[in-house]
Amino acid sequence: MNIVANRPRRLESYVGGVWTRGTKEGAALLDASTGAPVALIDASGIDFAAALAYGREKAGPALRRMSFHERAVMLKALAQALMERKEEFYALSTATGATRTDSWIDIEGGIGTLFSYASKGRRELPNARVLVDGDVEALSRDETFSAQHILTPLEGVAIHINAFNFPCWGMLEKLAPTLLAGMPAIVKPASQTAYLTELMVRRMVETGLLPEGAVQLVCGSVGDLLDHVDGQDVVTFTGSAPTGRKLKTHPAIVGNSVRFTMEADSLNAAVLGLDAAPGTEEFDLFVKEVAREMTAKAGQKCTAIRRVIAPRAHCDALVAALGERLGKVALGNPADENVRMGPLASLGQREEVRARIRDLGAEAEIVVGEPERAEVVSGDAEAGAFLNPVLLYCGKPEAGRAVHDVEAFGPVSTVMPYDTAEEAVALVRRGKGSLVTSVFTNDPGLAQELVLGVAPFHGRVLIGNRSSAKSSTGHGSPLPGLVHGGPGRAGGGEELGGMRGVKHYMQRTAIQGAPALLSAITGRWVDGAPARADDEHPFRKSLAELRVGDQLVTATRTVTLEDIEHFAGFTGDTFYAHMDEAAARANPFFDGRVAHGYLILSFAAGLFVDPAPGPVLANYGVDKLRFLTPVYPGDTLQVRLTCKEINPRANAEHGEVRWDCRVTNQTGATVAQYDVLTMVAKTKG
Amino acid sequence: MNIVANRPRRLESYVGGVWTRGTKEGAALLDASTGAPVALIDASGIDFAAALAYGREKAGPALRRMSFHERAVMLKALAQALMERKEEFYALSTATGATRTDSWIDIEGGIGTLFSYASKGRRELPNARVLVDGDVEALSRDETFSAQHILTPLEGVAIHINAFNFPCWGMLEKLAPTLLAGMPAIVKPASQTAYLTELMVRRMVETGLLPEGAVQLVCGSVGDLLDHVDGQDVVTFTGSAPTGRKLKTHPAIVGNSVRFTMEADSLNAAVLGLDAAPGTEEFDLFVKEVAREMTAKAGQKCTAIRRVIAPRAHCDALVAALGERLGKVALGNPADENVRMGPLASLGQREEVRARIRDLGAEAEIVVGEPERAEVVSGDAEAGAFLNPVLLYCGKPEAGRAVHDVEAFGPVSTVMPYDTAEEAVALVRRGKGSLVTSVFTNDPGLAQELVLGVAPFHGRVLIGNRSSAKSSTGHGSPLPGLVHGGPGRAGGGEELGGMRGVKHYMQRTAIQGAPALLSAITGRWVDGAPARADDEHPFRKSLAELRVGDQLVTATRTVTLEDIEHFAGFTGDTFYAHMDEAAARANPFFDGRVAHGYLILSFAAGLFVDPAPGPVLANYGVDKLRFLTPVYPGDTLQVRLTCKEINPRANAEHGEVRWDCRVTNQTGATVAQYDVLTMVAKTKG
Repeated sequence: MNIVANRPRRLESYVGGVWTRGTKEGAALLDASTGAPVALIDASGIDFAAALAYGREKAGPALRRMSFHERAVMLKALAQALMERKEEFYALSTATGATRTDSWIDIEGGIGTLFSYASKGRRELPNARVLVDGDVEALSRDETFSAQHILTPLEGVAIHINAFNFPCWGMLEKLAPTLLAGMPAIVKPASQTAYLTELMVRRMVETGLLPEGAVQLVCGSVGDLLDHVDGQDVVTFTGSAPTGRKLKTHPAIVGNSVRFTMEADSLNAAVLGLDAAPGTEEFDLFVKEVAREMTAKAGQKCTAIRRVIAPRAHCDALVAALGERLGKVALGNPADENVRMGPLASLGQREEVRARIRDLGAEAEIVVGEPERAEVVSGDAEAGAFLNPVLLYCGKPEAGRAVHDVEAFGPVSTVMPYDTAEEAVALVRRGKGSLVTSVFTNDPGLAQELVLGVAPFHGRVLIGNRSSAKSSTGHGSPLPGLVHGGPGRAGGGEELGGMRGVKHYMQRTAIQGAPALLSAITGRWVDGAPARADDEHPFRKSLAELRVGDQLVTATRTVTLEDIEHFAGFTGDTFYAHMDEAAARANPFFDGRVAHGYLILSFAAGLFVDPAPGPVLANYGVDKLRFLTPVYPGDTLQVRLTCKEINPRANAEHGEVRWDCRVTNQTGATVAQYDVLTMVAKTKG
Repeated sequence: MNIVANRPRRLESYVGGVWTRGTKEGAALLDASTGAPVALIDASGIDFAAALAYGREKAGPALRRMSFHERAVMLKALAQALMERKEEFYALSTATGATRTDSWIDIEGGIGTLFSYASKGRRELPNARVLVDGDVEALSRDETFSAQHILTPLEGVAIHINAFNFPCWGMLEKLAPTLLAGMPAIVKPASQTAYLTELMVRRMVETGLLPEGAVQLVCGSVGDLLDHVDGQDVVTFTGSAPTGRKLKTHPAIVGNSVRFTMEADSLNAAVLGLDAAPGTEEFDLFVKEVAREMTAKAGQKCTAIRRVIAPRAHCDALVAALGERLGKVALGNPADENVRMGPLASLGQREEVRARIRDLGAEAEIVVGEPERAEVVSGDAEAGAFLNPVLLYCGKPEAGRAVHDVEAFGPVSTVMPYDTAEEAVALVRRGKGSLVTSVFTNDPGLAQELVLGVAPFHGRVLIGNRSSAKSSTGHGSPLPGLVHGGPGRAGGGEELGGMRGVKHYMQRTAIQGAPALLSAITGRWVDGAPARADDEHPFRKSLAELRVGDQLVTATRTVTLEDIEHFAGFTGDTFYAHMDEAAARANPFFDGRVAHGYLILSFAAGLFVDPAPGPVLANYGVDKLRFLTPVYPGDTLQVRLTCKEINPRANAEHGEVRWDCRVTNQTGATVAQYDVLTMVAKTKG
């Protein structure tokens, strides 16, 4: 299928399990460089209530039947399948105005987000359907009433309304946490570049890797879709603030308290530190970063640097350096491989950006570029949406309004001077909440002042300096593991951030009750729940036989002074509290010489370990160890080991078993409490 | 001051550091039982923009200068001061219609929430101003670029708009997390019971324990207050859904993405399990709980049970048992100590509840009570807002609308029959999102089915059974450590939940950069950050001398086969992987006999411990221990111990120090990695 070369294709929506066209011919979407039609878009006549019902009833239950690990494995397979087809996406992406580098961010950056969630999902989530959140809260002294927060997938559909600038990444960065959480989605790409989203969804559906209906696609207007949302649905929006506000106040969204995440315009800033004078590495890094952020995706990134805040003394040098660098950026048709920056997404976008530059012009002067005429190395400067980089300078930014408020969504930034770190912070905060700000400094004290000063106004802050120059992922790149979103003007949303993003699609519920019942619900043994001790040592049981609540109560062992001295001599740990009665007594926590904590652990293992080969393969760690009562010579230890959590691995012959380990003394007081982590075979074979 | 007996007092607002009256005389607030005027309320003429500015500029910086522990200590002192004055609050509370028991929930429950946050804050938060969120994310292989999420207090004001039913608890449950986070608040109580809130705020201000402006109070309408909020402010609302929706769509709240938490009406359910037949303990517990929830606060609780979902076969017995119990509830003026249930908050509320009962009457029949006439043991049945409990029965709840939708905010519940667990879940979910549902069953399988079935629709689910009968805190009690709020119809808010509630008033920001700079910002040592080794062993340093990044690199020690055998013999841990070459080789993780994990820990301590008495007092625990590479006989161990975090205690002569401990072998591979937790004296004295 050669989509670009033939006459414009009518895009299809994928709803209710079928690819379907709108009832009208649709509006034409044009190649950003040539103005040639690429596709036609229309979604009229689609039954959106049915699409929602299909997601809720067909895909939701199928996704919720899978465990987190199964969903993660599914995401990985999907990412691999898409990666194999990446050249097809690159070929079509050129029509959006994207260079190869721009497309890489969109296509491979998006697929990489799937890979990242697949990998983090298996590492950080259990192989289960219910996610336990936080510790058990003991609500009674006698362990008959406790609570545990859990997270379960919301049972509606996530509607993702995306922006035109990242037709692939914009979809995939939201789908990854949504699907991992166990929720189906309806994707609504912005029209201008929907043809690339449509192609990718088509390939996703063809893989057959997702449960039917897990991803639906609407190419065109969503019509009355939002009228049908309820409290189990989620709506996310990336785009302009006015549209976002309109959606946020939609009666069905407000009336049903639908979770709504918005990522709108953001006047992101970059601050050159007072120490980063011309000639320093930080100055050069800053120039490079600002120029890159202005020109990548032709500045059409929500995270691009719009405000360049620099020490007054260095502004001239900075403008000169940026001017030189920006002057070398070859603008043209990205199909031409010499081109370093492509056009804006459409002629309409160019008119919009030119208008915003005029707004900025009221408070700032243009120091680089001529917005009203384009100089290109290839392509048609008028039929294509070309715009060379434009740098402005605002001499009195503290008095400015437009420079902190007007987002020119293209290769446009404004330089602003400051004198003190406090002023720099105040200027950054004038953005009223942004996705990201970066500060370039090699001075730790200044870094602290700037970063903590702007942190409450941002979802992300990047520090640039010489040590991270080679490894930094840069100002403009949201990362799967880090929060993406910003407060206030940026919309108040929080996306990505690793498992934080997954929880956005789940409901947190506090479950209270008797420990036995809590255990039944969470699948984890809870303190106070009944335990089973049988003749077989639990280390003799494979994952096929072991049950949560299986328990071993060991024999006892008395710790002697000789043991303590022997251990000290053997290990070299001759800390005074173990060796010197008088010094130990002087310690506020001890009444005399005490046993080493590591001696207690070692003796405990001696008590609970079953020595012969069996399904328990290794002790790979310990969590949350606390020594709660000192052990004195003559004290007698006993261990209670209870199987707490079983996590069979999806792709291996073994899995993790977490044991609750409690060491007590002869009075029943808990001496030490911790989780022992073991690797156990699935079968005895 | 005897507020009740004298002629009605004009309530005052506390804004901008002064107690001030509105410009008008104000509306009269009447005693719920007698109809006598208690106070007059008006807030007209107050400059709300100035109040916001005062909170932001005066109290915000003062609160943010305090550490979490300092704020926690402040909350504890405040709670103590209020508890000492509790009888004054009880005395005034009677006018609201509250019995002593009702007032206990409101007054001591509220103060208890302060105590709980004070205690949890010191236990679960660092003694610092910046809260680290989650683990460090390594973003480069060479440790030159990493990220850390942090939480910093929002720099605006939290505006708490509260409901009439809990004038004290409703304020304090929100103030506790707000102040602990470091944000000032403006409290706006519902008019009807504002006199009690005003009295408590008066006493709070008098203590002088809070920074000036940390709590402001508006008695009366908030006028144009919300017009002035921005993205650093937070608004919370508890009350009716229509008002909540109006506030949520306020242009300044939407336009500035102001965080808005809503807790609106909720058709909470209680489900009697299929196993809980008459004669079982669960049946009796259920009857008791439903009756209590209907009558506590005269049913004026957001968490009260509105829908009683019971097996069809047991409905008659249930209605009979509830009828008998409810018939014994003595209704009257709560000033009379024989009274078990007081009036509703006002005559207006009684009319409202009667109207809602009529709505329910379209689908359900009244089986207990006569809403149109009140039978009282004291007080005036007409001048007071008295209403005896009303129980309804809806035979076809699956066809009902009003019974799942109409909230009669008084002593009113509707019994509904079900046949299968699936039907019970479906009925509960018809509430479209609630604060809490309880299920009474002693069957773990049924508990799992019911609880997981309703969890996505709830913020809290309580399981009642015989084992937790004595210790259960009950269906209707939100607890400081557990989430309070519910999705969908309940408003979508999430309050309380321990430290989760605190984070609602903070901004999460991902900080990326070189580890050295991250360390400077978070105050915690980060892998890859520079470390300092000097001549003095770090265990010789008190908290006054120790610095984050102080590091010890130890001598080395070679582990011999004799060591392993000796350790096995001494501890009794003769696991085959340590003792049997052939069996160890057969293990998928080992190439032959390996050292015990606990031997590695013990030798590591022998290498890093400084034996002489000094400021390090004890090793009280270990976190996140992972054994990463097996140790074979002949391997040589070395330890790198780095001071990672220092937490001086507010009220003790010592504090916690967390050390990053990395054990490597002769190839440099990490054998074990963990955090060592020690208690260290503040000074060497």
